[in-house]
Amino acid sequence: MKAVVYRGAYKVAIEEVPDPAIEEPSDAVVRITTTNICGSDLHMYEGRTAVEEGKVLGHENMGIVEQVGEGVRHVKVGDRVSVPFNIACGTCRNCQQGWTSFCLTMNPTEGVDGAAYGYANMGPYNGGQAEYLRVPVADFNLLELPPGDEFEQDFTMLSDIFPTGWHGAELAGVVPGDSVVVYGAGPVGLMAAHSALIKGARRVFVVDKEADRLSLAAKFGAEPIDFSKGDAVEQLMDANGGPVDRGIEAVGYQAHDHSGQEHPELVLDNLVKSVRSTGGIGVVGVYVPEDPQAATKQAKEGRIGWDYGTFFTKGLSMGTGQAPVKRYNRQLRDLIVAGRATPSLLVSHQLSLSEAVSGYEHFDKRDDGWTKVLLHPAA
Amino acid sequence: MKAVVYRGAYKVAIEEVPDPAIEEPSDAVVRITTTNICGSDLHMYEGRTAVEEGKVLGHENMGIVEQVGEGVRHVKVGDRVSVPFNIACGTCRNCQQGWTSFCLTMNPTEGVDGAAYGYANMGPYNGGQAEYLRVPVADFNLLELPPGDEFEQDFTMLSDIFPTGWHGAELAGVVPGDSVVVYGAGPVGLMAAHSALIKGARRVFVVDKEADRLSLAAKFGAEPIDFSKGDAVEQLMDANGGPVDRGIEAVGYQAHDHSGQEHPELVLDNLVKSVRSTGGIGVVGVYVPEDPQAATKQAKEGRIGWDYGTFFTKGLSMGTGQAPVKRYNRQLRDLIVAGRATPSLLVSHQLSLSEAVSGYEHFDKRDDGWTKVLLHPAA
Amino acid sequence: MKAVVYRGAYKVAIEEVPDPAIEEPSDAVVRITTTNICGSDLHMYEGRTAVEEGKVLGHENMGIVEQVGEGVRHVKVGDRVSVPFNIACGTCRNCQQGWTSFCLTMNPTEGVDGAAYGYANMGPYNGGQAEYLRVPVADFNLLELPPGDEFEQDFTMLSDIFPTGWHGAELAGVVPGDSVVVYGAGPVGLMAAHSALIKGARRVFVVDKEADRLSLAAKFGAEPIDFSKGDAVEQLMDANGGPVDRGIEAVGYQAHDHSGQEHPELVLDNLVKSVRSTGGIGVVGVYVPEDPQAATKQAKEGRIGWDYGTFFTKGLSMGTGQAPVKRYNRQLRDLIVAGRATPSLLVSHQLSLSEAVSGYEHFDKRDDGWTKVLLHPAA
Amino acid sequence: MKAVVYRGAYKVAIEEVPDPAIEEPSDAVVRITTTNICGSDLHMYEGRTAVEEGKVLGHENMGIVEQVGEGVRHVKVGDRVSVPFNIACGTCRNCQQGWTSFCLTMNPTEGVDGAAYGYANMGPYNGGQAEYLRVPVADFNLLELPPGDEFEQDFTMLSDIFPTGWHGAELAGVVPGDSVVVYGAGPVGLMAAHSALIKGARRVFVVDKEADRLSLAAKFGAEPIDFSKGDAVEQLMDANGGPVDRGIEAVGYQAHDHSGQEHPELVLDNLVKSVRSTGGIGVVGVYVPEDPQAATKQAKEGRIGWDYGTFFTKGLSMGTGQAPVKRYNRQLRDLIVAGRATPSLLVSHQLSLSEAVSGYEHFDKRDDGWTKVLLHPAA
Repeated sequence: MKAVVYRGAYKVAIEEVPDPAIEEPSDAVVRITTTNICGSDLHMYEGRTAVEEGKVLGHENMGIVEQVGEGVRHVKVGDRVSVPFNIACGTCRNCQQGWTSFCLTMNPTEGVDGAAYGYANMGPYNGGQAEYLRVPVADFNLLELPPGDEFEQDFTMLSDIFPTGWHGAELAGVVPGDSVVVYGAGPVGLMAAHSALIKGARRVFVVDKEADRLSLAAKFGAEPIDFSKGDAVEQLMDANGGPVDRGIEAVGYQAHDHSGQEHPELVLDNLVKSVRSTGGIGVVGVYVPEDPQAATKQAKEGRIGWDYGTFFTKGLSMGTGQAPVKRYNRQLRDLIVAGRATPSLLVSHQLSLSEAVSGYEHFDKRDDGWTKVLLHPAA
Repeated sequence: MKAVVYRGAYKVAIEEVPDPAIEEPSDAVVRITTTNICGSDLHMYEGRTAVEEGKVLGHENMGIVEQVGEGVRHVKVGDRVSVPFNIACGTCRNCQQGWTSFCLTMNPTEGVDGAAYGYANMGPYNGGQAEYLRVPVADFNLLELPPGDEFEQDFTMLSDIFPTGWHGAELAGVVPGDSVVVYGAGPVGLMAAHSALIKGARRVFVVDKEADRLSLAAKFGAEPIDFSKGDAVEQLMDANGGPVDRGIEAVGYQAHDHSGQEHPELVLDNLVKSVRSTGGIGVVGVYVPEDPQAATKQAKEGRIGWDYGTFFTKGLSMGTGQAPVKRYNRQLRDLIVAGRATPSLLVSHQLSLSEAVSGYEHFDKRDDGWTKVLLHPAA
Repeated sequence: MKAVVYRGAYKVAIEEVPDPAIEEPSDAVVRITTTNICGSDLHMYEGRTAVEEGKVLGHENMGIVEQVGEGVRHVKVGDRVSVPFNIACGTCRNCQQGWTSFCLTMNPTEGVDGAAYGYANMGPYNGGQAEYLRVPVADFNLLELPPGDEFEQDFTMLSDIFPTGWHGAELAGVVPGDSVVVYGAGPVGLMAAHSALIKGARRVFVVDKEADRLSLAAKFGAEPIDFSKGDAVEQLMDANGGPVDRGIEAVGYQAHDHSGQEHPELVLDNLVKSVRSTGGIGVVGVYVPEDPQAATKQAKEGRIGWDYGTFFTKGLSMGTGQAPVKRYNRQLRDLIVAGRATPSLLVSHQLSLSEAVSGYEHFDKRDDGWTKVLLHPAA
Repeated sequence: MKAVVYRGAYKVAIEEVPDPAIEEPSDAVVRITTTNICGSDLHMYEGRTAVEEGKVLGHENMGIVEQVGEGVRHVKVGDRVSVPFNIACGTCRNCQQGWTSFCLTMNPTEGVDGAAYGYANMGPYNGGQAEYLRVPVADFNLLELPPGDEFEQDFTMLSDIFPTGWHGAELAGVVPGDSVVVYGAGPVGLMAAHSALIKGARRVFVVDKEADRLSLAAKFGAEPIDFSKGDAVEQLMDANGGPVDRGIEAVGYQAHDHSGQEHPELVLDNLVKSVRSTGGIGVVGVYVPEDPQAATKQAKEGRIGWDYGTFFTKGLSMGTGQAPVKRYNRQLRDLIVAGRATPSLLVSHQLSLSEAVSGYEHFDKRDDGWTKVLLHPAA
């Protein structure tokens, strides 16, 4: 089959690779109908991770079940399914408690809890930017979708970014009536804003400096704040009449100030200032334990010298980490079907697999309007 | 009346000061029967805060209601009461939501939410290391105790350290069956351990290097870890067979390593290592936004460069801040009366008010066995 | 001043009564700008309660603070305020835990926890269908509103029915993505539907037989089910494709079947059938411990023989009782100001105080289109 | 193999039946080391259910894994395991949300959610009062235990009654500091009392009339109330100084008054009186939708005419239903190992399989001291 293969920094190729097959009785093979390029794929693309050459990329996958192993009891060939990016065993303590993003058994990498498709350090699993994908423990991992092709562009957000944005709102503790700020208007930040509004937030502010993304934020019903036009926190305080109830981090350790300099502590500091005493902060932008290319010795070791003294003094709380997709994807699917969630608003490009190389290039340069790229392997 | 008055670094004096009086209709005056010296009083005693000379110290107070204002509807003269260290209005949004430690109206200090008795930056309120204390908004703030003098040494822990330890366990998310580590075997750490066990933790480890405190931890049913005898995290991993479910910080920014050097990031780093992925950390040890006497420029600004990358990668969560005493003191009082909580185990010394100066000296030096000092002004 | 006074079954009169005054230092007097007739006022109007003649009715009140007692610290003369129907002390255990609807100290009636204005068995407090109202413990009870007269018809729902509907959704455990059925499209049922949708429900069904009310349900975005046209549960199952996740009872013990017969067990039975196993039911329709005019001996004693065996077998849960308005009114006010809640949609009539008698008559007969009546004493 | 087989009312026999085998790839076969007779087995024994003759009884099972199917990834032959009484698929919405007691796929019986071993209406699964047991979906359902035979009498309570008692405390909403009443001192009631105390309740009262059971309650640290010596509610009010915070129902529809008459509404009425306003009630005693042998027409249809009017007026809440064992058994196992839970205290008899017939007889007659009977098939 054809697949998007990693070939070193700034190099992906469309190659012919062996078809995936049932390896264990609980496996399924899914024929991919839609697979997205994720912002976190760019960490690998830019050569900032230890991902091995030859790996098939892609962890945002959906499609039709093509084959099932003998031990699969529930999923049937022909089912339309969403594939959560986390690969979970369904049996360990973390899975049992709903933390499929920290499965204790599926990732053989020493010291890392949690596995994923086509991703650095997340286990020996190929990704789904390809015609077919092997899915382990299919009954537990796959989410059934209504048959047909309706809502394809919405459902494709169920594998990662919609649940990840929702998780940000959960970790922040958003409840109806809250005011919320989201730092970062990338796909995850926009999904966090969408989620907070669905959960009944009264006002949601989104901070970024890219005009196309800020206008998408407004489309979702949020209020954009352009930090290239002045201090983000000051603008927020003016707009909201004081600090907000909750804050969501959707930027990560590669945060840049308006002059383009990398400042890993920048967004955390702004969140501490933005959120009122006793409030909550949800962090879904990625921070890493080791970053050899970081600017300072501290940052290389994952140490971020942010304003912790004020964080404590204000009695703030913080939740972090990769989203347990399975905890949310069922209800988000149902909200899509009922017309109350429309994550597809952020789709900017739909490409065939053979166009993926160019898709990576444009998306990595953050070319104007390249917000979210879907690949359709069968197209 | 006689009171303990702050007179500059390492100087407190027993002085004659004016009796407190009803100033507002909602006030009460309490005759103090027991008032404790708190570890956080030592921050002021050592001259590390901006507290004004002449302030009466003491925020851990209990006694008998001597007088009530005209607007007091519930509390009666002669009632035996515990006085939470937080002074709360009962009306603002934070008070309404149970966050009396971050009351929005009782502290006129710019930018600080929350007020307290006899404390730096916490408003113009004298403390209770004295014969009498004025209590604002008495109906809302005072907790009724059973009449008489039974449980006096237990009830005196209800004003601060028992609820503060309990809050640490709450912020960490301790549920029945959990394994828990507490860093710091001072009074708050011991109360956190006691709380975690009452809440049904299966094992609680307490890390310190003082033999007297570690043996108290054992008395409360916890398992002591002496970090002067080897790496704390390694000992913990060996004893528990891996990381624990929850961690509690009861040390604060003045953390020292075993050689006596101050390392404000030390305990946070150890907690990140000690707690399993998806676990929770509760921080009740104090961190400050400004610390002019700190060793590094970062630390002077309250910036702590701890291992945030691993914190995120493990999907940990963290709650922080001063305890809202009123949220817990009623149920803790009832547990004491039922014989299921015995915080008095940690009382080491009971002094008259005139002995307070010597009490401060011994406690500040952490003289062996000086764990918790109670003052009885009437004695 | 002028006030609506109860004078026996089916008799209310506009009478001159003494102006209310400050009786305790914590009191305020509020000049009423809007006060509503509530469905539960009709229990008294129809002579089905023990309310004493001469009582001023009205527990859904808002207005401007006219006077405050000496002990009032927060509320100021001239403030625009909403008055929760519950009168709470702010000091007892129930108030402290957010259950102001079950205050332990404000109602002297033996065996009844909770007090209210102008209501049978809820204490010696006159109501606010009048020019002025005395409000006890004003700082704790009053909710501040933005000055002016904007949102008057929305804010007037904050004293009772909007928080009561919201409480129904809370007790039922509604979370985002849920399907919900509300039995009863009276004002409380409509507010429950509005609340469930704001909280992120994917579909909300409302069951009634009055066309005007069902069309209001549709205006709020809910799906009407007309039980005069067929079995309610069957229609619901067809529309939803099976049982719903949550159910809300907004009818009460005077439930009638489509032929007009009173069946107090009818709605509970339908809820047990409508809600899927493990689901939740919130009951805000009123049931009473004694109902001398009920049809059966059991019902006279408040015993309702509903299908409890199936309730248990399905593992359902149920929450009940009067709403603690103060727990919700702040966030609901903020949602109104942000344009995300518009309870005023259900207002059908606005009358002067002198028109109140006719308002009671029409509302009691459920005359077509008489959904919700507001009185403006100053008009 | 030998097994306890149902042969009609009051008749069980030890018979030779075919050995169970792996039928699906996800199955395991467990060699039973301990299996208990449950109070609910007596419903079948007494002929009050529709259970088919020939069924092997027994849903409280533990043992050693003898054989695993090809699709089993986690469980290994030789593992010592506890078998939850619920048979769950691990895939459906209820399983995913932790409600394994209401699995939507494992029970083919029309209209019943949830499956179990050897039980009426709970699906075509034989029980474990036998030498071997087939366990479907073994990875998801089995709980690993430490190897060896330590804690055998404690661990055997993990399959049903300890989690069921714990569930009662959960449904009632027990939090630290609460006072609690448990109606019924059978094994489940005793486990509920044990659970409430582990969860930090300050006082737990247990109501029954059997002296041997009441003395066991005292052994667990609860306070016995003997309703043969006076009104249960009055005794409780006297002992506690008023109503309690939480109530647990561990009796069920066959409740008898002290004269021996069946009164299905009796315990519910007492709970409504016993629990303070805003409190919670957890119901784990069994109620059924149909009971052809009940005394009244209402009761035959599962309708129980209890004091619902007062339930509403007090704002009480109630949770019900069979326990999802898997939600609790891991933490309860850990509490046993840590020495903080000792459910084995209630074991009264240990028999071989061949003695099971006599065990049923004595237990059914509630012969003095026959509290809890364990069977050891290998003995």
